[in-house]
Amino acid sequence: MYRHETRLRVRYADTDQMGYVYYGNYSAYYEAARVESMRALGLSYKSMEEDGVIMPVMENWSKYHAPATYDEMLSVHAIIKTMPGVRIKFFYEIYNESDNLIHEGETTLVFVKKETGRPCKMPDQMREALAPFFPDEKTPG
Amino acid sequence: MYRHETRLRVRYADTDQMGYVYYGNYSAYYEAARVESMRALGLSYKSMEEDGVIMPVMENWSKYHAPATYDEMLSVHAIIKTMPGVRIKFFYEIYNESDNLIHEGETTLVFVKKETGRPCKMPDQMREALAPFFPDEKTPG
Amino acid sequence: MYRHETRLRVRYADTDQMGYVYYGNYSAYYEAARVESMRALGLSYKSMEEDGVIMPVMENWSKYHAPATYDEMLSVHAIIKTMPGVRIKFFYEIYNESDNLIHEGETTLVFVKKETGRPCKMPDQMREALAPFFPDEKTPG
Amino acid sequence: MYRHETRLRVRYADTDQMGYVYYGNYSAYYEAARVESMRALGLSYKSMEEDGVIMPVMENWSKYHAPATYDEMLSVHAIIKTMPGVRIKFFYEIYNESDNLIHEGETTLVFVKKETGRPCKMPDQMREALAPFFPDEKTPG
Repeated sequence: MYRHETRLRVRYADTDQMGYVYYGNYSAYYEAARVESMRALGLSYKSMEEDGVIMPVMENWSKYHAPATYDEMLSVHAIIKTMPGVRIKFFYEIYNESDNLIHEGETTLVFVKKETGRPCKMPDQMREALAPFFPDEKTPG
Repeated sequence: MYRHETRLRVRYADTDQMGYVYYGNYSAYYEAARVESMRALGLSYKSMEEDGVIMPVMENWSKYHAPATYDEMLSVHAIIKTMPGVRIKFFYEIYNESDNLIHEGETTLVFVKKETGRPCKMPDQMREALAPFFPDEKTPG
Repeated sequence: MYRHETRLRVRYADTDQMGYVYYGNYSAYYEAARVESMRALGLSYKSMEEDGVIMPVMENWSKYHAPATYDEMLSVHAIIKTMPGVRIKFFYEIYNESDNLIHEGETTLVFVKKETGRPCKMPDQMREALAPFFPDEKTPG
Repeated sequence: MYRHETRLRVRYADTDQMGYVYYGNYSAYYEAARVESMRALGLSYKSMEEDGVIMPVMENWSKYHAPATYDEMLSVHAIIKTMPGVRIKFFYEIYNESDNLIHEGETTLVFVKKETGRPCKMPDQMREALAPFFPDEKTPG
């Protein structure tokens, strides 16, 4: 398992007139947490895209336990539970400043060759960076 | 069952550098479809809020079959399959201009008294407007 | 002069916890009004981009006379006052449901060849579509 | 003069299909920089709002010298040039990772009593925090 924490400040732009973070804005929090979790492993989504692999989202799930509110410093955990293949699944846990779990989410993304639009295998560099966190899983060989 | 179709034009603001609608922006499409589906029954979410009932989102699920792209006129179907109680669940089907189903989603919202923050029953006006679409379901009485 | 009106419904996603439309969200309203004003002349920004010309924004100005609020049907006027050259300037006037002018804006965009990243002349098709609205301006040639 | 720098990472959510940050998304960058510039002085916009003073935007201006792109770590400078009265004007300068000035902006906000909706004077706590940066300006008294 791989877990990484990103801290994010809620902006006024993120709120709605209910005084909560608008339910659609958690997706950008997830994205920030995913990208930072990769960066912590020396991986850059930007470079991967420049190398011709994009990662469109296939499926997303969100559970709103309690609202996030303006100016809170959120702690967003991005978690990978199984070694990715042509798909990668991220789980999220969001904690507020009182360390309460206010939100959970899951996103499944797929590796796609930009040129062909076809699914492809996870880039080698990412496989190598993730492998130490999944010692019991055999890599295809 | 109740089903209502809303047509929406994809804005440049909705796209990302992949050339697709960003995955978090479907939530606003869902919202527009929900609100228009209620308006078609003579119901106003705005009035309901002014009457002290808000509808925060509890859970959301999205399945991205194919990307929506810039300037497409999307057809967003909002569907209610069972008579709501303290919760209301909307299903969505999004069709592109070629009439292909490109996206599915589900949102569960809860009726909450603004003043107390406590869950409450669906407002009477909404129950009455929805009842004809669920003839086999007994209303509490 | 060329003027075109687009009607837009304020979404919950557009509001912030002040209960107003967030000040950054007017840009997407401007964009929708620009695109519809062009479509009304038989012009498609999407096709123009596919033909290799993009229109990045150079400058933007917004004046907030009164807030726009949730669920209002806004009337967004996009106005071109002078025949565009390598730049095009749009003015906006936004009226609420009581027909009060609540907002004004201006955006200057530049025509750019996608391949070279260099400014270029307005596409011929657009010049021809706009010419009848600017009878006193000489076209170069 | 008061100047404060905030560093911000460009999210995928912020980009559009041109591969640039969408022109409307700079407003949220400005907001983050304003709030952090205040926090650096021990001021909290959130607390001010809880104390009954809101700060709606009256006017906004943006100049796009060069695009900001995905994953860049931007340096957003928020600058106050004159001691605020019932209005406060922020200037912004945005530098990219190569330290090039890519963007400038200005936002005028007004202090408003939430209860009455009427303009009011800048809260005392803010005046005291800002005063040392404007030694030549007489405070009303």
